[in-house]
Amino acid sequence: MIQTAPAGENIAFGGVMSAEPFSPSHRESLRTQYHQVRRLTERLCEPLVPDDYLLQSMPECSPPKWHLAHSTWFFETFVLASFEPGFRPFHPLFSFLFNSYYEAVGERWPRPARGLLSRPASGEVFAYRHDVNKRMAGLLETADEVTWQAITPIVELGINHEQQHQELLLTDLKHAFGLNPLRPVYLAGTSFGEGKGTPLRWTDHPAGVRSIGHAGAGFVFDNESPRHRTFVERFQIASRPVTVEEFLEFIEDGGYDRPELWLADGWTTRQQKGWGAPLYWDSDAAGLRSVFTLRGQQPLNMIEPVCHVSYYEADAFARWAGARLPTEAEWEIAAGAGESPGHFLESGRFHPAPDNGGGQFFGDVWEWTASPYAPYPGYRPASGALGEYNGKFMCNQMVLRGGSCVTPARHVRPTYRNFFPPDARWQFSGFRLAKDGPS
Amino acid sequence: MIQTAPAGENIAFGGVMSAEPFSPSHRESLRTQYHQVRRLTERLCEPLVPDDYLLQSMPECSPPKWHLAHSTWFFETFVLASFEPGFRPFHPLFSFLFNSYYEAVGERWPRPARGLLSRPASGEVFAYRHDVNKRMAGLLETADEVTWQAITPIVELGINHEQQHQELLLTDLKHAFGLNPLRPVYLAGTSFGEGKGTPLRWTDHPAGVRSIGHAGAGFVFDNESPRHRTFVERFQIASRPVTVEEFLEFIEDGGYDRPELWLADGWTTRQQKGWGAPLYWDSDAAGLRSVFTLRGQQPLNMIEPVCHVSYYEADAFARWAGARLPTEAEWEIAAGAGESPGHFLESGRFHPAPDNGGGQFFGDVWEWTASPYAPYPGYRPASGALGEYNGKFMCNQMVLRGGSCVTPARHVRPTYRNFFPPDARWQFSGFRLAKDGPS
Amino acid sequence: MIQTAPAGENIAFGGVMSAEPFSPSHRESLRTQYHQVRRLTERLCEPLVPDDYLLQSMPECSPPKWHLAHSTWFFETFVLASFEPGFRPFHPLFSFLFNSYYEAVGERWPRPARGLLSRPASGEVFAYRHDVNKRMAGLLETADEVTWQAITPIVELGINHEQQHQELLLTDLKHAFGLNPLRPVYLAGTSFGEGKGTPLRWTDHPAGVRSIGHAGAGFVFDNESPRHRTFVERFQIASRPVTVEEFLEFIEDGGYDRPELWLADGWTTRQQKGWGAPLYWDSDAAGLRSVFTLRGQQPLNMIEPVCHVSYYEADAFARWAGARLPTEAEWEIAAGAGESPGHFLESGRFHPAPDNGGGQFFGDVWEWTASPYAPYPGYRPASGALGEYNGKFMCNQMVLRGGSCVTPARHVRPTYRNFFPPDARWQFSGFRLAKDGPS
Amino acid sequence: MIQTAPAGENIAFGGVMSAEPFSPSHRESLRTQYHQVRRLTERLCEPLVPDDYLLQSMPECSPPKWHLAHSTWFFETFVLASFEPGFRPFHPLFSFLFNSYYEAVGERWPRPARGLLSRPASGEVFAYRHDVNKRMAGLLETADEVTWQAITPIVELGINHEQQHQELLLTDLKHAFGLNPLRPVYLAGTSFGEGKGTPLRWTDHPAGVRSIGHAGAGFVFDNESPRHRTFVERFQIASRPVTVEEFLEFIEDGGYDRPELWLADGWTTRQQKGWGAPLYWDSDAAGLRSVFTLRGQQPLNMIEPVCHVSYYEADAFARWAGARLPTEAEWEIAAGAGESPGHFLESGRFHPAPDNGGGQFFGDVWEWTASPYAPYPGYRPASGALGEYNGKFMCNQMVLRGGSCVTPARHVRPTYRNFFPPDARWQFSGFRLAKDGPS
Repeated sequence: MIQTAPAGENIAFGGVMSAEPFSPSHRESLRTQYHQVRRLTERLCEPLVPDDYLLQSMPECSPPKWHLAHSTWFFETFVLASFEPGFRPFHPLFSFLFNSYYEAVGERWPRPARGLLSRPASGEVFAYRHDVNKRMAGLLETADEVTWQAITPIVELGINHEQQHQELLLTDLKHAFGLNPLRPVYLAGTSFGEGKGTPLRWTDHPAGVRSIGHAGAGFVFDNESPRHRTFVERFQIASRPVTVEEFLEFIEDGGYDRPELWLADGWTTRQQKGWGAPLYWDSDAAGLRSVFTLRGQQPLNMIEPVCHVSYYEADAFARWAGARLPTEAEWEIAAGAGESPGHFLESGRFHPAPDNGGGQFFGDVWEWTASPYAPYPGYRPASGALGEYNGKFMCNQMVLRGGSCVTPARHVRPTYRNFFPPDARWQFSGFRLAKDGPS
Repeated sequence: MIQTAPAGENIAFGGVMSAEPFSPSHRESLRTQYHQVRRLTERLCEPLVPDDYLLQSMPECSPPKWHLAHSTWFFETFVLASFEPGFRPFHPLFSFLFNSYYEAVGERWPRPARGLLSRPASGEVFAYRHDVNKRMAGLLETADEVTWQAITPIVELGINHEQQHQELLLTDLKHAFGLNPLRPVYLAGTSFGEGKGTPLRWTDHPAGVRSIGHAGAGFVFDNESPRHRTFVERFQIASRPVTVEEFLEFIEDGGYDRPELWLADGWTTRQQKGWGAPLYWDSDAAGLRSVFTLRGQQPLNMIEPVCHVSYYEADAFARWAGARLPTEAEWEIAAGAGESPGHFLESGRFHPAPDNGGGQFFGDVWEWTASPYAPYPGYRPASGALGEYNGKFMCNQMVLRGGSCVTPARHVRPTYRNFFPPDARWQFSGFRLAKDGPS
Repeated sequence: MIQTAPAGENIAFGGVMSAEPFSPSHRESLRTQYHQVRRLTERLCEPLVPDDYLLQSMPECSPPKWHLAHSTWFFETFVLASFEPGFRPFHPLFSFLFNSYYEAVGERWPRPARGLLSRPASGEVFAYRHDVNKRMAGLLETADEVTWQAITPIVELGINHEQQHQELLLTDLKHAFGLNPLRPVYLAGTSFGEGKGTPLRWTDHPAGVRSIGHAGAGFVFDNESPRHRTFVERFQIASRPVTVEEFLEFIEDGGYDRPELWLADGWTTRQQKGWGAPLYWDSDAAGLRSVFTLRGQQPLNMIEPVCHVSYYEADAFARWAGARLPTEAEWEIAAGAGESPGHFLESGRFHPAPDNGGGQFFGDVWEWTASPYAPYPGYRPASGALGEYNGKFMCNQMVLRGGSCVTPARHVRPTYRNFFPPDARWQFSGFRLAKDGPS
Repeated sequence: MIQTAPAGENIAFGGVMSAEPFSPSHRESLRTQYHQVRRLTERLCEPLVPDDYLLQSMPECSPPKWHLAHSTWFFETFVLASFEPGFRPFHPLFSFLFNSYYEAVGERWPRPARGLLSRPASGEVFAYRHDVNKRMAGLLETADEVTWQAITPIVELGINHEQQHQELLLTDLKHAFGLNPLRPVYLAGTSFGEGKGTPLRWTDHPAGVRSIGHAGAGFVFDNESPRHRTFVERFQIASRPVTVEEFLEFIEDGGYDRPELWLADGWTTRQQKGWGAPLYWDSDAAGLRSVFTLRGQQPLNMIEPVCHVSYYEADAFARWAGARLPTEAEWEIAAGAGESPGHFLESGRFHPAPDNGGGQFFGDVWEWTASPYAPYPGYRPASGALGEYNGKFMCNQMVLRGGSCVTPARHVRPTYRNFFPPDARWQFSGFRLAKDGPS
């Protein structure tokens, strides 16, 4: 189990969000978890002004209002519609408006146009949330044992789904704010301590047949299973993610201008988009670099993990450094059980912190791996509409591991597989290096 | 002077918006007019929910918040910045954010991204309006005679500019609402009387040298001048715009499927966009036609002027009918002094009404003419940045005349030249027919 | 009647192409004209290598092979198919492949994909031409009087149509060659004499009602009629087109970087396409300017008319010069009967020459006018499919007048109206200035 | 070593192309191989008409002329430029025009515009080939031992590179011909015997650590190495590729209309492109299906391997069939040493044939695997410009194995890794099924 960041660092979201451990196998615990997670989503919206709710800066991003409604639609569609006696939808069109990508559920409103739905007004969306919460509470309280067995995995999935949208709500908001010349501050009133950082060390792992993937009890996504054997050659892996300082060396060595360092598609992308630094980096007239964060513009901290880079940039850096990215098997082997986590959503930083010696496998930044997102041997998606959750995206994406500073702490685990296209930069994505072992 | 619609038809906006005549040459009158017009813009926003303020459904449309800010920016930039003692901008970035297209004023935020500016929040934009209003009030009160002479034409232009944005605020909002499956109602609580309609008559006008364009006192846009001679062949012109009933005949005769009726660019556009009826027309499963309006979905009224058609559709209809569109000279000659206007913004209908025998040259629907938008002989744009107001758009657009049901009544006049690209449909645009005179 | 250039200047195409006057109303004459024009098209292809026949550099351009086939298709479709006894098409698919834009004739191969038709091979296309020529010869010889009367206007139209494609064949070829880093030479072995050029003079024309457009006998396109009255204010017009030297002054004065000189659409286009000089201008490392021509790369001749500019550039130059472009009425009034023509296709220059004092209203460069392409009062398109020839393009284009150095001499006349979109630069398009007359 | 198809099936290319085994380690043998391969490229062009040489139907395809020139440029650039005494390029611009994607060699002509290079004329390109061949012959004959050691691997790479372009020349030509309504026949005069086909059997393979990839002597591409261990779970694999008949069942069961069978990106692609059958399938008015081939339109043969399907279609079929695609490790394990090959380029069929019981792991159709194209553990690209050959494409592509009916027989081997994006259909791509082994 991943541990949360020390309480002292929880700057603004302290009280309510303390992430108490709970045992999800019991009814009371699941109810508590449901309401805590649902409540957290709304708390994340408290710093917003009404105009922010409709904000969609690119097709890959969704407006806050849409996240609020879609995560509600999930419970309404997959739990209430099947298990609530006398179910009637809150609104006949909401299934059309707030379905994300479930073909089996029917037609849906086009993703790039989510920012055009000024109605339902935000107030109606909150009413939708509260109505569904009330009905969910009723169902969770009154369900007979058969129903309870049937809904438990779906409710757990819905809770984890909502946690994913908590992260997306923040990443999407950051993307839109980052485009605004006024550089809006999501949450003011902090300054990040500089920390001390740690030198890079290499850890050696022997070759052999290993097992990765999930086995045993507890909630996981289907893509984490089955646990299976894989052969891993001897490798070395870095003790922490690549830092801002190290990435600046790459930039200053012409890294963005040397095609021999880049994958062909990466170079094309870099040319088309004019990349010359990670997303959100800025520099003033005097050349002083700073970075846009959810807590306002900040000076660039040399010892932080570099963040908001694409797979292409991570891969080019690794080639420049004479190293490579780890495969997801190597990462999972090296990460172990996650005893020394970094910072998660609950820390209230919303920005990665320097390594304190714990290695930062968990929290702070998602880490790009060298592994294309593909099914594990023997993988079976869930049946029905929920089978669309993960499996149908297993093409053209790369696996990221470990969670970030905007991931809820209880959401990740060592076997967790996140995935994004190789050109994506708006997630809190960094990377660590690996090398072939000496033979 | 165009007269306003009879008071009895003013459904919802009655009291405040009564369009009292005023004499703009006097200081008191201009002050009154300034505040009336500024106030009306805000009244038009009263039916909105907060989420609507950010709504931008296509690059040609702007969010309500942007209209509110840009019309304020106009006074701040062209009046206060030059004439207010000790001028300081309300916010250093607003000139960048709310400049529309004035190259001479500097760089500006890209038009298609206006919907991404969730900040400044709407509240700040209203504060911006009130601050500028207060400073404008001070300047209008205290200006010495020399300053007064200098600012009067700019203030008049700013007032007319804001009236144009009142119309655009409504047309843009209608466009976004029209895309929303919930079909939001801008203002509820009305039903349109059916009226009686009038038969089509043709009026004959002899050939000869005529004068068109503006001469004399009173505010006009630069594109209406100079008054000049033009030779007009004998022509006939319809007594009223084409109606819904007449347009339905065209549709039922296959008008949208017969390329021989269409201009080449029109046919390409019709094919690409899949047009088969005017914008906002709908039909239910039983084939019953209705139309989306700012006052809710309404049954199609056969005797109303057809509205929300492009120039291409107007032109194709005219060819089908064995007629043509009038040139703007023919239209201006036929329209005369505008004694019998139709319905304007102040009527509160926000939807065209049937002709009551007055001919509807003014109000209800803008009328496409056969004239490309080009400078009049001897045309001179204003000097400085305001010279960009009209002249630089004199290419690739067609002239429309007469104002619509969302045009403020005091805004139009017989010489008024509106202009849009030939494929535009989201304005309240209709048309009337003309024919060559018997020779 | 436009006279041809002096024989001495006919560098390479001298003998065969001498443009003997003919009287097209007689059968013998029409037959001669038919075969001369058809033969000239093929002679224009003699300098090509086989690879050139498939060359299409943009959707607006067509491959040489397509011009060869389409101009043949015109006679087959509009003459033979209706009038040849026992007509059978040369190939059942050619009507589909070589129809340009005649909706009434049926579906057609998409324009941007004309360069994909490697088959029919060029040899087959020449066989198609010869077969149609033979059958046309038979029909022109044996037609009875009724048939003769019916086909004469169509054959005349087909001849003029083919002349238009002779010009297009060269402009399209130049465009494709101009993109090739090898800069292919269409026809080698010439050097252009520098000439002397002439100073700019202004001619004054009084205000009044004038008549423009075609009346009387002789072939014209439908868009040149009817002759009609128009009121023209007093104006002045330049004695010759704008020269390279004058255009260079505009460039050096920052003309391409000053938005206040440009139409809004023009400025957008200039920004998107990165224009900084007319098409085909080049400069070497030392800054020495040259120009790509069909007769090889040439030093820039200061006294030539500037060529290959868009309407937007012509309009911006005129604004910079404190002048404007003439309307087509002004141009036609000033051009008179065309007594002193410049250089046409038959000169073999394929590049504009300096004015020799004749005024160059005809030949050398097409001249952009300020007139959008619109129907004349009382205009009626031809009936049937040939009605699509001109009328359906009367939108979004500007009128050019006078013919160019790649227009066949017998093809133009004072009333001739050419038309292109305002951003087109690959035609041999220049312009002359006009001014409002002193009042 | 893959054996070639039986001589009897070599329909039109028999004599010259017999693929004699050679030992590439000897100078004489390499010389022979060089000239045989170079000659074969030209023989493949013999059926073309001159117009075909410029044909480019999409950016991914290149004109025949470009293939002829680029494969020559490879030898000129990587062999002659470094090793020929007194080297001078054949033409100073050819390195710019015919470089494909080697950033280290410098700027290059944009890929989508290869079809615009009508010059150099095809004749010049053949002259370029002959000149380089002559100089290569000289160098291969006279090189001292040190030079010989240095150039041997590059010459071998160049030969294999040219073989790849032989295949591409045919696939690209087929794509362009397939768009032409005339349906050109590349080579006429054949009819495909129907064959008998074979029933589908499943072969069982046990779990365990296996080695894949190349080890030992002989030419291979860098992406096939190093040979390395991998853990493979128990699996079953089909005895032959999926046939037309089987794929028709998928179609008739609604396979193209059931999103639950498709990857998300696959479904989007299928929707956007309107796929409903493999590329090149056609059906007449009576519903009779046929297929376009390089040897003319042919009736659909039920027992042939299905061909010209994308990865997305292969993956959807497998899901529909309750199976999956094999990984490349599984494929390589099952394929063994390639004792029973199918049909290659030398057969002259240019179209896949039915399985004759040999299993068709090699030849006939490339087989999509479930493996994203990624580096093998310990992979090192070549140094210098040739390091760009394979490594930089290791993203967003899927591995295909086994070669096709247009692959030269001597070009493939069991470890050969081909790769294309998952939406590519214009290669001769089919697939075979696999299943998890019973546990």
